[in-house]
Amino acid sequence: MNFHGSDIISVNQFDLADVTTLFTLAHRMRGIAKGETKCKLLEGAILGNLFFEASTRSRMSFASAFMRLGGQVNSTTGFAFSSMDKGESLSDAITVIKDYCDALVIRHPQIGAAQEAARYADIPVINAGDGAGEHPTQALLDLFTIFEERKVVNGSTIAFVGDLKFGRTVHSLAKLLTLYQGVNYVCIAPPQVQMPDLLIQEIRSKGFDITLTDDLETGVRSADVVYSTRIQEERFEDKMEFETIKDLCVLNRKIVTEKCKKDVTIMHPLPRTSELSTDLDSMPNAAYFRQSANGVLVRMALFLLLLGRESQLV
Amino acid sequence: MNFHGSDIISVNQFDLADVTTLFTLAHRMRGIAKGETKCKLLEGAILGNLFFEASTRSRMSFASAFMRLGGQVNSTTGFAFSSMDKGESLSDAITVIKDYCDALVIRHPQIGAAQEAARYADIPVINAGDGAGEHPTQALLDLFTIFEERKVVNGSTIAFVGDLKFGRTVHSLAKLLTLYQGVNYVCIAPPQVQMPDLLIQEIRSKGFDITLTDDLETGVRSADVVYSTRIQEERFEDKMEFETIKDLCVLNRKIVTEKCKKDVTIMHPLPRTSELSTDLDSMPNAAYFRQSANGVLVRMALFLLLLGRESQLV
Amino acid sequence: MNFHGSDIISVNQFDLADVTTLFTLAHRMRGIAKGETKCKLLEGAILGNLFFEASTRSRMSFASAFMRLGGQVNSTTGFAFSSMDKGESLSDAITVIKDYCDALVIRHPQIGAAQEAARYADIPVINAGDGAGEHPTQALLDLFTIFEERKVVNGSTIAFVGDLKFGRTVHSLAKLLTLYQGVNYVCIAPPQVQMPDLLIQEIRSKGFDITLTDDLETGVRSADVVYSTRIQEERFEDKMEFETIKDLCVLNRKIVTEKCKKDVTIMHPLPRTSELSTDLDSMPNAAYFRQSANGVLVRMALFLLLLGRESQLV
Repeated sequence: MNFHGSDIISVNQFDLADVTTLFTLAHRMRGIAKGETKCKLLEGAILGNLFFEASTRSRMSFASAFMRLGGQVNSTTGFAFSSMDKGESLSDAITVIKDYCDALVIRHPQIGAAQEAARYADIPVINAGDGAGEHPTQALLDLFTIFEERKVVNGSTIAFVGDLKFGRTVHSLAKLLTLYQGVNYVCIAPPQVQMPDLLIQEIRSKGFDITLTDDLETGVRSADVVYSTRIQEERFEDKMEFETIKDLCVLNRKIVTEKCKKDVTIMHPLPRTSELSTDLDSMPNAAYFRQSANGVLVRMALFLLLLGRESQLV
Repeated sequence: MNFHGSDIISVNQFDLADVTTLFTLAHRMRGIAKGETKCKLLEGAILGNLFFEASTRSRMSFASAFMRLGGQVNSTTGFAFSSMDKGESLSDAITVIKDYCDALVIRHPQIGAAQEAARYADIPVINAGDGAGEHPTQALLDLFTIFEERKVVNGSTIAFVGDLKFGRTVHSLAKLLTLYQGVNYVCIAPPQVQMPDLLIQEIRSKGFDITLTDDLETGVRSADVVYSTRIQEERFEDKMEFETIKDLCVLNRKIVTEKCKKDVTIMHPLPRTSELSTDLDSMPNAAYFRQSANGVLVRMALFLLLLGRESQLV
Repeated sequence: MNFHGSDIISVNQFDLADVTTLFTLAHRMRGIAKGETKCKLLEGAILGNLFFEASTRSRMSFASAFMRLGGQVNSTTGFAFSSMDKGESLSDAITVIKDYCDALVIRHPQIGAAQEAARYADIPVINAGDGAGEHPTQALLDLFTIFEERKVVNGSTIAFVGDLKFGRTVHSLAKLLTLYQGVNYVCIAPPQVQMPDLLIQEIRSKGFDITLTDDLETGVRSADVVYSTRIQEERFEDKMEFETIKDLCVLNRKIVTEKCKKDVTIMHPLPRTSELSTDLDSMPNAAYFRQSANGVLVRMALFLLLLGRESQLV
């Protein structure tokens, strides 16, 4: 992919070279992200940070990434204060707003919204979540975290735990991992929320091993990385069923200590509820807060690449 | 008008020299607005961007204009998170907030609110819409667009279409056009929403021709510029009446191609609904998205003039 | 206190030397706050301005303070657009968000929230109000205003008027004043909303005179400073009782002219309702709008100290 001027809509856009380019640059962002090094590469540039749906953390992460590079951020949150509340089409709104900005980040409840926005914007558009669709920078920061934590992906065993049926972040990361060699997938979930068949077939067709289980304790044994996710109550019509299921996927210090490899990396896209016990937080294996911090690095690198400024980095 | 330190409350403040000064400067803003040229003239300055009423596009346009010049923006949206929710007067709120900023933009549902704010602020205040009152920068960007598109206003025929009774932007632009020579007004609207008598008289008393009609196809024939506006359903008690009326004012490719001058300029303050067909979008005559982009240029020029920085422009 | 890297949670943290350090620096901020002098000491730095509760004025004051020093501000308002709406703990939210920023300001409806946030953030956290808890920068700007207006605190008589029972700002300022010598306290309030016994005892135990009265006209006679506050209707179950009480504490031009010292300083944390008559606004004694403007200076100084940049000030 030629990043300069591109839109980032789906993880399917990326090949191994793209990911390597992005992560090499993201790694170099750490000093700037911590505020230790000043950067003015995006000075004078404006990000349109369009969140038509709730998300404080993603919105702030994108904003900080752009600000750390010297740019400014023009934000909007929700529909209530939007002309779209008056019946305006997304395409019209984007056609207007693109002229105020150098890049757009868009989160929108409807699948396909970011792709639609990209059609009307002659500036880079980043999909920050389009309903049941994708949130590609989340998958990129997840993968980047595996690199930063473990230095290697090839040959790793990655266990996914929780809601693998509806979990957007799981699907995107699972796809990205097929860019590598010899990755083993372990999918730990009750049958009701197991990985979709289509995705399982896609992974298998590319020659990867994928194991399905509903038993957490055996499932995590071989894992180098355990990627935990929240099971959302709103997915279940039967609340009793939800209560039974959610406890099957709880990761805590006891399980990690007794059942996992000693150097296992624990990840989670956050926010968490009870599925990831806080008694893990002080373990060096708990990578989930480093993971969210990595989001700023990956987004910084992406902004530089999309705006064609990465070569100016000293 | 001496721009430096002034408030912009109404289009009545402007004479021809003011408009010329503003537009000459706005034209020079294009490179900066596109991010091609960096500008730090407002570095260190803060805009208080106070939107007590819905408007993503205007809010973002003002914000981008200030940011492009190197300034920073301190925004507020709605009443819910305002001390005015606790019963505070607008004058108190402004008296406090003016000390945090170098300029204020205010949108407020009540007519006269911006004027009231200006009384209490010793910094420039720009009215970004005060209910049924004015939104002067919209009229200025409309007029600027006619200049940018056609290079001349004197002797032009301008057709206004849609809700001319309540249309704030129509009234303001119509007034501004009286600064020029030999402008012909054509007002195309059903009788229920025709141009107000008082405004018709004002325009006629200044020696201009003004034609009223409810027939779109004949009305647009002589027009150099067609300025289309939305008919708002909420203005009609009788919804049947609205349904009948709204279709009389629909501008589409067929009408523009068959009935209008070949080089007609189509404008609209946006957002649009059905009154302006999307099949016009790809025509070179469709100036409405360039029009909204021009808003940033006009607002940039205005900020420089009000803050007395225009002479520092290289 | 070593400011660098500290959190500001309570006025109890400050001794006389701290306050003097802060105010000396705040006084030097005036030119920068007015936009007369550019400052880039916080260039590249990001403030997380987290308002989980309504407050336009405080939010904008903190934001402007950080911007005036060259930093950028990443804001959030309310819970609705927060992951905390999905059941996330404050500690998790802060652990994530701290990595996006160099300093945090937090307003939250729950007492102790800022202290909790500070435990999880390895960057400076400023409490901007935690429910019935504290809002220390308000007390600091109040005290700073007494200095700026009167040049001296030792030996002064300070009259507090209004809701002294629930008034958070009153309690904090009253505590800060005990750092000085010979301050006389006059507490003017109906018995239902008089100063809490515990605070009275604390002040007396430190050797200060404290007079309680429900008579405004005699209470203000000896005052060098009258600190008026709003009596909040929501504190009273019996609305009749509220109506009777609120009129006992109304300060107006007549009372100030006839009953107060000629050079009395009138303060109020704002917003005001009827308890502080607008007929006072034009009197030189009315310091309340200068007081709110001073908030930016105090917050600027605090940011410089907490981030260890004050020595770089030219």
